[in-house]
Amino acid sequence: MIDITQKDKTEKKDSTMKFKVDSTVNKDLEAKVISNLNNLTKPLGSLGRMEEFALKYCLARGIERPKIEKMAVYTFAGDHGITDEKVAPYPKEVTPQMVLNMLNGGAAVSVMARGAGVADYVVDMGVDFDFQPHKQLLSCKVAKGTANFRRGAAMTVSQCEQAIEAGRKVAKEAEGDLFGIGEMGIGNTSSASALYALLLGLQPELTVGAGTGAAGDLLAHKSRIIAESVDMHRKEWDGTPFDALRRVGGYEIAGMTGFIIGAAEKRIPVAVDGFIASVAAAVAVKIAPELIDYLYFSHQSAEKFHRGYFEMNGIRPILQLDMRLGEGTGAVLAMQIISQAVKCYNEMASFASAGVSNKE
Amino acid sequence: MIDITQKDKTEKKDSTMKFKVDSTVNKDLEAKVISNLNNLTKPLGSLGRMEEFALKYCLARGIERPKIEKMAVYTFAGDHGITDEKVAPYPKEVTPQMVLNMLNGGAAVSVMARGAGVADYVVDMGVDFDFQPHKQLLSCKVAKGTANFRRGAAMTVSQCEQAIEAGRKVAKEAEGDLFGIGEMGIGNTSSASALYALLLGLQPELTVGAGTGAAGDLLAHKSRIIAESVDMHRKEWDGTPFDALRRVGGYEIAGMTGFIIGAAEKRIPVAVDGFIASVAAAVAVKIAPELIDYLYFSHQSAEKFHRGYFEMNGIRPILQLDMRLGEGTGAVLAMQIISQAVKCYNEMASFASAGVSNKE
Repeated sequence: MIDITQKDKTEKKDSTMKFKVDSTVNKDLEAKVISNLNNLTKPLGSLGRMEEFALKYCLARGIERPKIEKMAVYTFAGDHGITDEKVAPYPKEVTPQMVLNMLNGGAAVSVMARGAGVADYVVDMGVDFDFQPHKQLLSCKVAKGTANFRRGAAMTVSQCEQAIEAGRKVAKEAEGDLFGIGEMGIGNTSSASALYALLLGLQPELTVGAGTGAAGDLLAHKSRIIAESVDMHRKEWDGTPFDALRRVGGYEIAGMTGFIIGAAEKRIPVAVDGFIASVAAAVAVKIAPELIDYLYFSHQSAEKFHRGYFEMNGIRPILQLDMRLGEGTGAVLAMQIISQAVKCYNEMASFASAGVSNKE
Repeated sequence: MIDITQKDKTEKKDSTMKFKVDSTVNKDLEAKVISNLNNLTKPLGSLGRMEEFALKYCLARGIERPKIEKMAVYTFAGDHGITDEKVAPYPKEVTPQMVLNMLNGGAAVSVMARGAGVADYVVDMGVDFDFQPHKQLLSCKVAKGTANFRRGAAMTVSQCEQAIEAGRKVAKEAEGDLFGIGEMGIGNTSSASALYALLLGLQPELTVGAGTGAAGDLLAHKSRIIAESVDMHRKEWDGTPFDALRRVGGYEIAGMTGFIIGAAEKRIPVAVDGFIASVAAAVAVKIAPELIDYLYFSHQSAEKFHRGYFEMNGIRPILQLDMRLGEGTGAVLAMQIISQAVKCYNEMASFASAGVSNKE
């Protein structure tokens, strides 16, 4: 068991959250799973990365024959104070509009989840709108949007803790053997870019991209606002991932970080969607590097720095389809592939059972 | 309509097969589909290659709102005389054994097809075995394996024509809106490597790889046998794709070439599996370049020259999962993605229908 305690430097920012995540390192189990894979009716290793996905799944679950019978994707939604700085080409009203679109089954993630047999939910972490109750809507609203991080911290310590705790609770109560996470929030590529820069000690010029379609003057403006904000926060930052998250993150990002922790606590792997979901994962992995063993990175977004983050960390995403839509769309596609990998592992015949001759 | 006639140079090798394939070029339809895609509730172009897949599907089908309601994958099987030269690490008995494994539902392609809701069939083009009838087995056997192409042509003109015609007929009679093709045949990476080299005018050293697991001395031997064979056939080759196919190809390869033609004749796109299915596609596209508009290249195999072929032709495969198993496994995974792309195109809400604000 790994004890994860967020210990900030100053009294004011101190967070006392504690998590316990099992290590997935189990040499006996690993040897068994590899032996099972090698006995399947196929040339050795010929399922390529599918074998890696199946092995990862078994090690995360901690059992030799886990099955994926139920999958669910969670779209975390939140608004961002940074939109006051006019960094996004879409108005912030699009956040609740798209949440309603998801609940009505008309968003990309809704269509894909339906097509893949994946249950889909929206988690309202901080949308600036009062939604009617809906069976696919989980209400975890911390506030109606973060504060503008160009002017101060996006969240207080207790708000950020509340958001992480809420995401963690969603995972604890979620039903399924494989989860996906994605997001919706106008302004959240700005928040994610600032968070990558602060968390990883990078110049924001590296981490800022077009988002939903910023170009020309708008992109230059977005880039400048984020650079100024990161410079300002860097001076005050206490060096912990928690404090980076609360300074420039968002409620939906904190919710996804919490979800990853909660899923890992019950040993259910998570397919991480795109650029913004990956920064939530980056925060989680900075809190506890062992969490990486519970994560699948679904796809490489067309958003500029996603590739950079993967290259810095030696991560090979499952898909590269130039998508940059968020919502969990890439996660759903990746979950279909992971599910097929685990099915092959469980359902293929062995050389012995099928009476197939092995290599001469 | 494009008239495709195989006209060989010598009387003896003359093939008079004729095919008619519709052009997919339709500027009006293309403009309509792009407009439909751009009105969906997502940032412009943010579904990335998924939009390309959906557009390609509409243009191939020739209609504005095609649906994918039924999918089927065909595994073409055949034996190869070249195995007499001991080029493969598995005995040739594995070809019928794996066919039976597929019919029993235990092969990788069987498991994946079941998981994806794709009907799966085996097409016996030339396996050296007498199978009992089975509802998933289509009997198109031309002969019990090709002749050894180290010693002469793998097929006669009429055998090769019969194999193409059989594959074409399978496509004509196939039910579905999207097809996949893959193969099974011990020795067929040798045949495919020789065929790439002969067809594309390349040195065999470039096109030969490990196949199901040739390494060290075995790989050097395989490479030498193929180089000698290609040199021998190059002197006699009449320059047509048909003659290249009959000289060093296989019954399952010719069957897949025919299937592509037959599917295109009825305007149903085909997801091409890996290294060997791609050489069948390469032959088809040499016969009629327009056929490319009906093809999805599913994945990039770990087999060495697959990447080279894609790079030479500016093809970006849908998946890159280091698979090298054949059977149609990569095709099934790609079909799931293509199906999701077409679903998004058909089922997502528009900005107007969902009341979502567009870009400011």
